[in-house]
Amino acid sequence: MAASFIEPKILKGFRDFLPASEIPRRALIETIERCFRLYGFVPIDTPALEYAEILLGKGGGETEKQIYRFKDHGDRDVALRFDLTVPFARFIAEHRAGLPLPFKRYHIAKVWRGENTQRGRYREFTQCDFDIVGSAGAAADFEILLMIRHALTAAGAGDLIIKINHRGLFNRFLDCLGLPDRSAKILRAVDKLGKAGAEETRSALSSIAGGSRADEILAFIQNRGSFEETLAEITRASGGESPESRRLSDLRAFMVENGIAGSFALDPSITRGLDYYTGVVYETFLTGLPDIGSVCSGGRYDNLAGLYSKEAVCGVGSSIGLDRLIAALEALGKLDARPSYSEAAVACIKEEDAGRCQVLARSLRDAGIPCEVFLEKGKLSKQCALAEKKGVKWLIIPGESPLEDPLTLRDLERRENREGVSLEEIRRLLRPCSGELTGKA
Amino acid sequence: MAASFIEPKILKGFRDFLPASEIPRRALIETIERCFRLYGFVPIDTPALEYAEILLGKGGGETEKQIYRFKDHGDRDVALRFDLTVPFARFIAEHRAGLPLPFKRYHIAKVWRGENTQRGRYREFTQCDFDIVGSAGAAADFEILLMIRHALTAAGAGDLIIKINHRGLFNRFLDCLGLPDRSAKILRAVDKLGKAGAEETRSALSSIAGGSRADEILAFIQNRGSFEETLAEITRASGGESPESRRLSDLRAFMVENGIAGSFALDPSITRGLDYYTGVVYETFLTGLPDIGSVCSGGRYDNLAGLYSKEAVCGVGSSIGLDRLIAALEALGKLDARPSYSEAAVACIKEEDAGRCQVLARSLRDAGIPCEVFLEKGKLSKQCALAEKKGVKWLIIPGESPLEDPLTLRDLERRENREGVSLEEIRRLLRPCSGELTGKA
Repeated sequence: MAASFIEPKILKGFRDFLPASEIPRRALIETIERCFRLYGFVPIDTPALEYAEILLGKGGGETEKQIYRFKDHGDRDVALRFDLTVPFARFIAEHRAGLPLPFKRYHIAKVWRGENTQRGRYREFTQCDFDIVGSAGAAADFEILLMIRHALTAAGAGDLIIKINHRGLFNRFLDCLGLPDRSAKILRAVDKLGKAGAEETRSALSSIAGGSRADEILAFIQNRGSFEETLAEITRASGGESPESRRLSDLRAFMVENGIAGSFALDPSITRGLDYYTGVVYETFLTGLPDIGSVCSGGRYDNLAGLYSKEAVCGVGSSIGLDRLIAALEALGKLDARPSYSEAAVACIKEEDAGRCQVLARSLRDAGIPCEVFLEKGKLSKQCALAEKKGVKWLIIPGESPLEDPLTLRDLERRENREGVSLEEIRRLLRPCSGELTGKA
Repeated sequence: MAASFIEPKILKGFRDFLPASEIPRRALIETIERCFRLYGFVPIDTPALEYAEILLGKGGGETEKQIYRFKDHGDRDVALRFDLTVPFARFIAEHRAGLPLPFKRYHIAKVWRGENTQRGRYREFTQCDFDIVGSAGAAADFEILLMIRHALTAAGAGDLIIKINHRGLFNRFLDCLGLPDRSAKILRAVDKLGKAGAEETRSALSSIAGGSRADEILAFIQNRGSFEETLAEITRASGGESPESRRLSDLRAFMVENGIAGSFALDPSITRGLDYYTGVVYETFLTGLPDIGSVCSGGRYDNLAGLYSKEAVCGVGSSIGLDRLIAALEALGKLDARPSYSEAAVACIKEEDAGRCQVLARSLRDAGIPCEVFLEKGKLSKQCALAEKKGVKWLIIPGESPLEDPLTLRDLERRENREGVSLEEIRRLLRPCSGELTGKA
């Protein structure tokens, strides 16, 4: 039979993760997850596929164009989730009565957008959301800010600046300018400042609010002194002390008490594009790599599940852009790209010793040391090369009788052999590797 | 505006995972993953969405009816993966040249099947596959068997029996009966024995092979003595010693050397339904819950990626049915359904202390102890009740000045207060909880 093969290829914008990229990706997720758990946050999961009506809401527009939507076998109009916020809103509306409030959850999962891939974006990517719902105070805002700093620092992102602002205060300022009705448009125009530049933003603002108002707005968002100076300026420009300005000064006090004020800046040009934010908003920039853009953004909202329920649920949350963070860590040389978890490997001298080699390996595994057993006989030099390629540090070479005779331990980094060692000595020497990768410490 | 709400509901066959079910689900996955890593297995990931042609292969039939398939924005014929085997075959065909062989990988991910949900099946569920490709020997078969036992035992599944058989030996037996051409049909009929019963299986076999042959096949698959007795019987019935019978005796020797022979039975009625298996096949039954069926099945194959490449890649692998395993652990009372990770919580006495309470909590978090900060002021009795509901063990009650005054530590299990303790004492008392949940030991 002349075989015809199906070409093994994947869709544009989608990716295979080979071990060398999946191992650091998983390690990063585990680090972030460990941080969330230390704050008492709990995981949830929701379906990848939902009713299109649920996901699109009143939406349409950009989302509608990007969403993977189709009819299922029962002719239902369904779609793949394009973010984790909309499913979370539906989740809260559906399960609110059974959840202890405030509810602190995280959700790390894939989402899908059939968008144009030209800007190096993917059609399948991982989001990493964490939110506190049912708590309106500064304490909740601060906890999320603290977690952003903690999670990114634990991930190895180095120094960072979390730029915060308060949408409510911005709106008070627009009220003072007599522009309350144009708030959404103005906030969106300001949100694009980074990408569009000052010139284009001025012209956008002019067409929304007129030239002189545009200049006042530009002056407002260019306040970039110390936190206190900026807060004083924007408080004055927004009509004086208000609950919103007090929220910012409360947050500032919390930062100082925690000795982390240096990681935060008050930046009135931060507005976030999404309409549902109503309170503090923030974006996070890495000092070592500012041009990559915000790696973690979010804010406070008054009414998360308004599309699905008449009960207003407020909250505050954030989302780590995992792919962007990985790209940043890679660029900073902070991504450990080890292609294996194994600390040690047992060489294969005789294939009939496979059972006994597993007994050797077990003794290390029981001590939490990842130990691979090589399955194929071959030149020892080849086995050493394979182990090195995998990033394995130690090769255990069994003797004639693996469980009775002394062993040889090869240090693959130094390329040195220690002859005549016992399994017990090896176990003592190879302390378990860090919890990062194996979950054992 | 009279609001009209979208009903917050999910698709039939799909599930929300609330923390009380997501926490034990994640803990189980982490336990299994830790086991895989101890053997040097590495993770991969593949796209949820692939070209339909890739996923369906020559297939059609049952798969075609169940698969979620649609046209994407570029009018490409795409589908959601319905298992992890087909994407792995495509992955191997595509990346083989860059992978060190033997390649030991695991893949834990969701798959989707739009099948009838009447039998309590889900349309979205998690598969947990592990395979060794590029190694033909008994050592690889044995490693997979060892891992099944290790992973399920670590998961708390208790005593189990892994029933193994060899398809090649079964085929030798069918050759002896003069039925080599009807092997696929016969193996499939035998695979249904458990569900269909002896009567129906006999009639199925009769219609394939005739009544007297059917009886001989039934006699063959009913060999259920000790491993050695059964092996002797089926070796004889399949024409005497062969590489296949030797493979089974090699595996038996490895089991004995590892002191785990009691976990295995040779059962000639195990054939597995899937056509691509060519060597050993196995299914795993929990002694405490045999009726739930196999929780982990698999086998050896000669040519994994044959649809996509002319290069034959052999391998051996297995798949844990995570949903079935969770149901089993639940029935066995072995699923820890704690709804929180927090060991401790800091009570909220004054909301303006939120910053200082985070400083207290940090000292525990830095020691690896998950510690939540309560954000809302309220009666202490209510805060205790909330903490208890979350399964938190300790409530830290700050004094007038949280960072200077002594603290009160409430033991929520015993409902006792210890007054006047220092943060250092608390930290010493609350040793970090197990690595199972937090990744810290």
